[in-house]
Amino acid sequence: MPTILGQNQYGKAENRVVKITRDGDTHHIKDLNVSVALSGDMDDVHYSGSNANVLPTDTTKNTVYAFAKEHGIESAEQFGIHLARHFVSSQEPIHRARIRIEEYSWERIATSDGNSRFIGADEVKHSFVRKGQETRVSQITYDGENWEVISGLKDLTVMNSTNSEFWGYVKDKYTTLKEAYDRILATDVSARWRYNWTSDEQRMPNWEKSYEQARKHMLQAFAETYSLSLQQTLYQMGSRIINSRSEIDEIRFSLPNNHHFLVDLEPFGLKNDNEVYFAADRPYGLIEATVLRDGVEPQIPVDMTNL
Amino acid sequence: MPTILGQNQYGKAENRVVKITRDGDTHHIKDLNVSVALSGDMDDVHYSGSNANVLPTDTTKNTVYAFAKEHGIESAEQFGIHLARHFVSSQEPIHRARIRIEEYSWERIATSDGNSRFIGADEVKHSFVRKGQETRVSQITYDGENWEVISGLKDLTVMNSTNSEFWGYVKDKYTTLKEAYDRILATDVSARWRYNWTSDEQRMPNWEKSYEQARKHMLQAFAETYSLSLQQTLYQMGSRIINSRSEIDEIRFSLPNNHHFLVDLEPFGLKNDNEVYFAADRPYGLIEATVLRDGVEPQIPVDMTNL
Amino acid sequence: MPTILGQNQYGKAENRVVKITRDGDTHHIKDLNVSVALSGDMDDVHYSGSNANVLPTDTTKNTVYAFAKEHGIESAEQFGIHLARHFVSSQEPIHRARIRIEEYSWERIATSDGNSRFIGADEVKHSFVRKGQETRVSQITYDGENWEVISGLKDLTVMNSTNSEFWGYVKDKYTTLKEAYDRILATDVSARWRYNWTSDEQRMPNWEKSYEQARKHMLQAFAETYSLSLQQTLYQMGSRIINSRSEIDEIRFSLPNNHHFLVDLEPFGLKNDNEVYFAADRPYGLIEATVLRDGVEPQIPVDMTNL
Amino acid sequence: MPTILGQNQYGKAENRVVKITRDGDTHHIKDLNVSVALSGDMDDVHYSGSNANVLPTDTTKNTVYAFAKEHGIESAEQFGIHLARHFVSSQEPIHRARIRIEEYSWERIATSDGNSRFIGADEVKHSFVRKGQETRVSQITYDGENWEVISGLKDLTVMNSTNSEFWGYVKDKYTTLKEAYDRILATDVSARWRYNWTSDEQRMPNWEKSYEQARKHMLQAFAETYSLSLQQTLYQMGSRIINSRSEIDEIRFSLPNNHHFLVDLEPFGLKNDNEVYFAADRPYGLIEATVLRDGVEPQIPVDMTNL
Repeated sequence: MPTILGQNQYGKAENRVVKITRDGDTHHIKDLNVSVALSGDMDDVHYSGSNANVLPTDTTKNTVYAFAKEHGIESAEQFGIHLARHFVSSQEPIHRARIRIEEYSWERIATSDGNSRFIGADEVKHSFVRKGQETRVSQITYDGENWEVISGLKDLTVMNSTNSEFWGYVKDKYTTLKEAYDRILATDVSARWRYNWTSDEQRMPNWEKSYEQARKHMLQAFAETYSLSLQQTLYQMGSRIINSRSEIDEIRFSLPNNHHFLVDLEPFGLKNDNEVYFAADRPYGLIEATVLRDGVEPQIPVDMTNL
Repeated sequence: MPTILGQNQYGKAENRVVKITRDGDTHHIKDLNVSVALSGDMDDVHYSGSNANVLPTDTTKNTVYAFAKEHGIESAEQFGIHLARHFVSSQEPIHRARIRIEEYSWERIATSDGNSRFIGADEVKHSFVRKGQETRVSQITYDGENWEVISGLKDLTVMNSTNSEFWGYVKDKYTTLKEAYDRILATDVSARWRYNWTSDEQRMPNWEKSYEQARKHMLQAFAETYSLSLQQTLYQMGSRIINSRSEIDEIRFSLPNNHHFLVDLEPFGLKNDNEVYFAADRPYGLIEATVLRDGVEPQIPVDMTNL
Repeated sequence: MPTILGQNQYGKAENRVVKITRDGDTHHIKDLNVSVALSGDMDDVHYSGSNANVLPTDTTKNTVYAFAKEHGIESAEQFGIHLARHFVSSQEPIHRARIRIEEYSWERIATSDGNSRFIGADEVKHSFVRKGQETRVSQITYDGENWEVISGLKDLTVMNSTNSEFWGYVKDKYTTLKEAYDRILATDVSARWRYNWTSDEQRMPNWEKSYEQARKHMLQAFAETYSLSLQQTLYQMGSRIINSRSEIDEIRFSLPNNHHFLVDLEPFGLKNDNEVYFAADRPYGLIEATVLRDGVEPQIPVDMTNL
Repeated sequence: MPTILGQNQYGKAENRVVKITRDGDTHHIKDLNVSVALSGDMDDVHYSGSNANVLPTDTTKNTVYAFAKEHGIESAEQFGIHLARHFVSSQEPIHRARIRIEEYSWERIATSDGNSRFIGADEVKHSFVRKGQETRVSQITYDGENWEVISGLKDLTVMNSTNSEFWGYVKDKYTTLKEAYDRILATDVSARWRYNWTSDEQRMPNWEKSYEQARKHMLQAFAETYSLSLQQTLYQMGSRIINSRSEIDEIRFSLPNNHHFLVDLEPFGLKNDNEVYFAADRPYGLIEATVLRDGVEPQIPVDMTNL
């Protein structure tokens, strides 16, 4: 046979599961989008169409919903660990399971201003508005022995309205850019960090707390860095997380430079003193890099944007 | 000529303007997407291509940016009023101007936890994260005499995890739905409300406060209504606003019923006690209605979704 | 009661129905997205939550699928007519039904080049690739007596690489645009045309042929008009349809001016002789107008873009 | 320093360039979206913010437009080769350049049916409609010595309305799926193939012809395979390309299984004889695999979908 099969994986993608937990009258929501990808002894299904080793993608979907009941959803990471372990442990042909999860956050709707005629205090305990800021993401991979957990977020849009410069760069024959000594720096943060928890023997991180802290450090580093380049800001964001969270060894960012161009108002006899900007769509700068704990091998894939 | 020209309008759409205002070291952001549509004496440009009456769309774009400097952006509505008045007043062939504005909200990034070595208090005064919840919208129309201001929001996703029922409905030969006595009620609120401010003689509403209050009342009505149908909830949301805000006479909603289907776990020997839901994409129920102050003529267009 | 209910409608939106028809070994596809909106005696469900007059949206979904079997899908318009008639005729509280349909086109995959060892001629009769060009749309409304059928298309992207000028326009203090004597003219056509078929007494148009012809005339008018403004081109596109198709009385367009800016290559010592363009995203000009058969009243809603 | 910098790259993404070439009155379009990513000696800009080695992303944008004039756009691949070579050759700190290109196809608008009063034959030579089917993609990487060219396409939606089965799979306690002996098989093809051209010494493939042929073979293999699983169809699509095109050594697919569920019409007394389907959105099966020429090392990254 002149052609052969290479790496392959399959499963049900984007299973939208919402889990309501009742603590008396107070309800809690977990709102996830779960994608399953399984690999293993799958040559036959590709070469001949024999499904003898194939657990249907429909079954992987059913398992997601059943596990939401059987195990609950303590965190996206813990839920993914339950799922990945199950597929690899229960199906001999499956050698590797990768679970990807998006999580959407909700917050409670504030009560009426003490207007007790309309509402009992219990009622608002089940009413929510979606936060709508970043999407939390997680990827859990298990090969029967070792775990890899990569978590992060995407679409967290941030802006510094000053304390950003850009000058001293290379100039070639195609360079027309003017140097900037006070510009807006804005980006949509996409970040993935890898935990050094890899084995059931190790103590598991507190996934919820770790996420909140990594997010906080990243935002603060963005805000507090006087920036000479988006690369410098990126590195500060990453090293702040590595230095603050011992459970995280590696982080990769993909940061578009959301250009805000100062509008030339001189034709209208007006001076634009860093006040009025045009927020551009395309093209945009795109800055991507990995920041690592010294001595650690990088594992997060380089490409967070698609070909 | 067997064919004639009907209603027409033109202008530059989606001008993305970001305005930074400096109050000492504290910066403030207004982040808008402004669309201009002009109507008037425009037969010639359609019939013969004569542009003698046409102010270029490029000029309407320039005007948006120039006005951000000249007038500032106190509120989306006030900014739209400046623009609409300008086009109608300054260009004889233009008889009507309609300004549509989307506004994106930002909040400040919280400071480091008293870690004064890294950061001075001033630095965080220019750092922002986009809120990412609803998009605020506004439409300002002026014909040289009267104003129409319609404001609102879209993509505000809300959910009640209980206190919603649906039963007692019509059953025909195509009806298979089971009655529900405890279901999730979730929707993406799209709402437009019309102000009764129509003339420069009247006292102008406080646009910012009015928006915040209308949004608050709407959310509370959603949370506090024990719902027998999404229509009932919609009506409560609308009447709460009309009753609470004397400056608003009419509101129209377009509310998708974001179905959350209880997953059947019985095949797996599990009982699903209103815990595990599948969040569906399409199809979805779509409930649309206008709520009016009694005695008022409706003006908000019925179609908030496109053909 | 200080607030009252205004116009309202409800139903199941975006029912994705695919119908396969077998003509021997040759299969045919109809691929639709059907949205149902019903109006009528619906005060109670809004005021009190009584569903006594409410046919569930779930039932409207079931009806779409059942009718695909019972009536087949001869055309989107004919299918919508069956549905609208059914809802108004069979349910006393329902006084008006509006069916909106999107249709996606497919074409056959070409056979192997006479390689008869691999494939019998029958096999390719069931293999399709989605055309991917415009989306065909239709809206059928019925009130028990009269019909309104509005059809059209969206997202048909066209470009003339020459024969477009723009000059002789108004210049005010905010005008900086240079006049153009040879520019690219490009747009994404969104068009809706209204048929003058309104009653079961009239002979029904051939919906499929009418669509193909209207589309063809529109494209040819775009290609063949030497344009002094996008408004002029729009009018030519509309009047060509009205003049060529007696079954169509009115058409409305929403045409973004997809700007292609000539890139200034002089800083690099290069002359750009209408060769290299930057295709911009936002902002864009937006030109909207109705073209009517003389003597006819316009009925297509003015707003094809959302507030 | 406890943290270090890992892999990094930067550049301007999504430069939208449209090139018009004039062959007498006949115009030709190339419509590309070009993204530049450069790597090399970039430690300083991350650690200290020194831009001494940084060619601005704005300059990479300018270069894209200048090269469209200087070199023309013979094919996306050839254009990317010019760009990648330039950045690595002309800038000492840049050791690797990766150019990603999306290409949008256009076809000519058909002429009027011999209606010579309205149109000269020359006019339609400059009028185009966007094809709207797949997006062609290409990625060209150069490190100063070797080339890697990966091309392909995305969003090519195909369907077989019969000749697809799925049965004989693993059944565990979470399996409820019924076996299928005649189902619809539909997918949105995303494919990337790698050329074995790696050095300037080798004869370069005919990029345009190679793309057309690879696409044709892939579509035919999809149409002609009697499918027992989407994996089997995928493998046939890949091996058909490898076997037919000696310049291609490896191909990777990401194929969603676009589920079309047969609607249960029995509650309405109707039999659904593989006629009426519900086209589902989420979840969907996702089948991904690499097909290789025997003896070749895989290089295409495994992840074509994002974390």
